[in-house]
Amino acid sequence: MVADKGKKPKLGDKIEEGADPIDADILKSIEKLQEVQDELEKINEEASDKVLEVEQKYNKVRKPVYDKRSDIIKSIPNFWLTAFLLHPALSDLLNEEDRKIFKHLTSLEVEEMKDVKSGYSITFNFSSNPYFEDTKLTKTITFLDEVSTKVTATPIKWKEGMGLSNGVSHEKNGKKRPHEDDSFFSWFSGTYQKGDMMMDAIHGEFAEMIKENLWVNPLLHFNNDADEEDFGDEDDEEDIGTDNSEEDEDEDQEN
Amino acid sequence: MVADKGKKPKLGDKIEEGADPIDADILKSIEKLQEVQDELEKINEEASDKVLEVEQKYNKVRKPVYDKRSDIIKSIPNFWLTAFLLHPALSDLLNEEDRKIFKHLTSLEVEEMKDVKSGYSITFNFSSNPYFEDTKLTKTITFLDEVSTKVTATPIKWKEGMGLSNGVSHEKNGKKRPHEDDSFFSWFSGTYQKGDMMMDAIHGEFAEMIKENLWVNPLLHFNNDADEEDFGDEDDEEDIGTDNSEEDEDEDQEN
Repeated sequence: MVADKGKKPKLGDKIEEGADPIDADILKSIEKLQEVQDELEKINEEASDKVLEVEQKYNKVRKPVYDKRSDIIKSIPNFWLTAFLLHPALSDLLNEEDRKIFKHLTSLEVEEMKDVKSGYSITFNFSSNPYFEDTKLTKTITFLDEVSTKVTATPIKWKEGMGLSNGVSHEKNGKKRPHEDDSFFSWFSGTYQKGDMMMDAIHGEFAEMIKENLWVNPLLHFNNDADEEDFGDEDDEEDIGTDNSEEDEDEDQEN
Repeated sequence: MVADKGKKPKLGDKIEEGADPIDADILKSIEKLQEVQDELEKINEEASDKVLEVEQKYNKVRKPVYDKRSDIIKSIPNFWLTAFLLHPALSDLLNEEDRKIFKHLTSLEVEEMKDVKSGYSITFNFSSNPYFEDTKLTKTITFLDEVSTKVTATPIKWKEGMGLSNGVSHEKNGKKRPHEDDSFFSWFSGTYQKGDMMMDAIHGEFAEMIKENLWVNPLLHFNNDADEEDFGDEDDEEDIGTDNSEEDEDEDQEN
């Protein structure tokens, strides 16, 4: 059995060569099986389409409610900063510098593409700020096919002396803190921990987490520890569990 | 700010104590935000229900096609054994002994519960065989809530001298091969590598993989290397990439 392996003919050849009838019957069965699989695939595609239709319909229903929510959120100072910082995973994305910049984040918006299945975008709206010229930063995730994804982002127009250069976070006064490279803005721009497989995977998950978790119910995270917050207070970084509050004090004086 | 943290009142207390109007406005906003989140949750639940309705409808459409498929598969010897062995992950589940037993596997059936969301069952149908009394072994996965799952399985009635005892695979002639504990039947009975976190996670994934991958298109795996198979040949274990073919030879002589 093992010995004649090398000259064993391919399945497809067997019928032509008039192989024994058992093999021919089996080949017929495999062909029939393939037809049934094709039939199943058509049903699955139709089912997927119907599910997408439902999703599209409900995205339309959700839209005005999300808009109403955005308006309410605007009246709660530092809402998104707080929700990010109290989110168990997304808080890792914001370094000290990002937290200051996020005080200018006025709204966040997640939008699925019309057909739902091709991807989604996350838009961060900022008030005018000393860091960059933009007021709208959008990260777009496009599903090209079942395995590949294209990620694009608004190129950030940093103001003089601000932002990332050469993929490394802006170092204020030459001080470099641990994990400073793990910045929201290096993640946003796609320069986040390049080459580190583990971090690359996490990178992709952040967008998904914003869409599927933070966006769906940010209040859940905001309320996590809301009674410890100082709404609208310029110093509230100190209350949001950082472990280098002395450094913060120094920086606040620089402002 | 940090100094008076201890006596800072809880958010809920502020209104009662007639705190400053800014805080009261913010609390009003948070309340409104909660109402909007409740509204969104209702929409999401309705959307989920509609998606389930679609799934239920198409499960009914698929049923007769799956039945037709099962009939065709019965005419292809060792179809499920081959599909399992050529599946990149599920092949790990079958040890030498399991492969012999799987020659008696006549059909496999995955069925979602009527409401789709409460779980599913996987049924393995066997012809009468020298290993156990059962002809139908069912593993049932029940989703209790969003985080917990209950897994039950038909208790296998092993014949004299066969099967698992004390959670360890049956050791034939006192020989114990590496990974012999990684048996389909110890997985099936839920005794698979207990206590090993990594293996526990993989354990749960096997059922999911059978449902979402093998069941959806077994022909894809069967065809993986179909031209290397000996349909219906009692010795075909030797052709299915095992790396201890000498041992196999010994066992065949024992039969």
